Amino acid sequence: MAEGSRTSEARRDDVFGRWVIFSPARSRRPTDLKSHNPTNPSPAPSADAPKPSCPFCAGRESECAPEIFRVPPPEPEASPWRIRVIENLYPALRRDLVPPAPLVGGEEEEETAPGERAMCGFGFHDVVIETPRHDFRLWDLDAEGVSDVLLAYAALVRQLAEHPAVKYVQVFKNHGASAGASMAHSHSQMLGTPFVPPSVTTRFNHMKETFERSGHCSLCEIRSEYTLISETPNFSAIVPFAASYPFEIWIIPRQHISYFHEIGQDKALELGSLLKTMLQKLCKQLNDPPFNFMIHSSPFGLSSSRLPYAHWFLQIVPQLSVIGGFEIGSGCYINPVFPEDAAKILRELDCST
Amino acid sequence: MAEGSRTSEARRDDVFGRWVIFSPARSRRPTDLKSHNPTNPSPAPSADAPKPSCPFCAGRESECAPEIFRVPPPEPEASPWRIRVIENLYPALRRDLVPPAPLVGGEEEEETAPGERAMCGFGFHDVVIETPRHDFRLWDLDAEGVSDVLLAYAALVRQLAEHPAVKYVQVFKNHGASAGASMAHSHSQMLGTPFVPPSVTTRFNHMKETFERSGHCSLCEIRSEYTLISETPNFSAIVPFAASYPFEIWIIPRQHISYFHEIGQDKALELGSLLKTMLQKLCKQLNDPPFNFMIHSSPFGLSSSRLPYAHWFLQIVPQLSVIGGFEIGSGCYINPVFPEDAAKILRELDCST
Repeated sequence: MAEGSRTSEARRDDVFGRWVIFSPARSRRPTDLKSHNPTNPSPAPSADAPKPSCPFCAGRESECAPEIFRVPPPEPEASPWRIRVIENLYPALRRDLVPPAPLVGGEEEEETAPGERAMCGFGFHDVVIETPRHDFRLWDLDAEGVSDVLLAYAALVRQLAEHPAVKYVQVFKNHGASAGASMAHSHSQMLGTPFVPPSVTTRFNHMKETFERSGHCSLCEIRSEYTLISETPNFSAIVPFAASYPFEIWIIPRQHISYFHEIGQDKALELGSLLKTMLQKLCKQLNDPPFNFMIHSSPFGLSSSRLPYAHWFLQIVPQLSVIGGFEIGSGCYINPVFPEDAAKILRELDCST
Repeated sequence: MAEGSRTSEARRDDVFGRWVIFSPARSRRPTDLKSHNPTNPSPAPSADAPKPSCPFCAGRESECAPEIFRVPPPEPEASPWRIRVIENLYPALRRDLVPPAPLVGGEEEEETAPGERAMCGFGFHDVVIETPRHDFRLWDLDAEGVSDVLLAYAALVRQLAEHPAVKYVQVFKNHGASAGASMAHSHSQMLGTPFVPPSVTTRFNHMKETFERSGHCSLCEIRSEYTLISETPNFSAIVPFAASYPFEIWIIPRQHISYFHEIGQDKALELGSLLKTMLQKLCKQLNDPPFNFMIHSSPFGLSSSRLPYAHWFLQIVPQLSVIGGFEIGSGCYINPVFPEDAAKILRELDCST
């Protein structure tokens, strides 16, 4: 169907079970949608000096919370590190509190007693500084640099997974102040929580329902030529059929894999390259918009009966509009851009120049 | 417990079943939390002239989408109306599309076939202009004026409920551009949807679970002296035990009532007065912050087995911080202000001067 001839439609996604309203009347043409809030100017090639006031720059390591590990540069260079993984100076959850005792005899799905209403704020909240360069955005790194960031995520998730009280790790990146980034220097974050977060529970409940009805994992079935942006041997980048946000992108492993943190070097390089391309496309098409990305993985210690519908993926959401009372109240989003149109625009966009 | 001596805690609410992280380390003192984005200057007493460019002002009715009904002023005045209810000029859902056919033989809970993934964008999207005065905020009206707005909501919900394809009506108000208001003139909105929205399904599932475990409706049980702000014979205003947002307020009917739209004149006057006071308190304490409020009612045609845990309430959320990738990915919010502290501050705040 051609752009412009579409009429309002409601769609339910097969992963979270959410209804989304597609309403082309509420926007200009999809190709006109741009961020009014570009986040960072393009880096000037010579601007690789540390920024005096930024604690994430090389040389100011002592101003940060303790380091967990670092990735050294491939060859001796000016910077003593390529990636640094540190504790968050203002953690939302605290590793120094006494963790809640594990439930005895509970189902692994029931991570807390059903009526339990409060627990101490034990957990982990860590930061991945993706590059020593203050002026680089994640997609200014080469594909190998992006893949090293992904491998650093995976290594940290594996560390946190060893703690018996950690039920889930949420990996996420905020880019731009209006997407929640309080530091301009390119970084990602990770929270290891002592409970399974609400959206993960909702996702698993809905994936289970779909699996029991259809016999298939929703994410194994999701590829469609109309919403495909790009594909590699192991990953598909698509605009989901019921995207909540305009120009939302999902990168999905083509094989059925439950946990992100099991990723190896080869696939990380492939994913790093695809992620870099998708971020370049969003930046070019939407005028360097604020965005978030999140890795949706599986709760730890999943029973074998749940593995058939546990499939990790990475979600990228550009922040082009404000969330209001309708979305907060109903959980239903209004998206002015049809996924088929967004996918076509992103598929055809050439970022090689 | 005194402010300042608190440590991080995770709490699950009894209505949506969501975990929220309370993290005092991530904020200044609760009393210092203010909006940097005040939305409207206080009205000047003499500034009651229409604003030339605003189609919601009196005298510019012809520039709006069609009127549904109006509430006349109590006595002949300058303005020909006190409240106007109109269609949205850019509706997210459209009343002119053919509604989806009702399911035959389905449970009333199953408002759509389980595998159904798309339907046309039929529905209603209407606007309540709360006052002809461009310079008035909702809480600048007297208690009777606010109650008339609530009665206009109820009358419109009753109209929409008559359509067999409308499953739910979400009433909401966005105040301030960063809370999603595209017009400065004080107004609220309403969407009548052909499906039960995702948050309503989640809320009902969780309320049912709590009811089956405890034998009680969560909202009948929710009063606590620590989180109570104010009470009238028929309503309680509280900060919920697991508030997602700092200084979030819930106004809850003290009797077990399932549908907002059944409200009568006396209770509307009581609710109008309490809502006015709560908005005044938020404005004074938080420097006229952007906010949203939402009325959480029940899907239409509820079976009698579900009525025992169906209890409507009104939720007010000030927008003081940005939602980032953690919240979007996990559905779990981080709140720097403990509900007991927010309730104490709001309870003790005097708005009479």
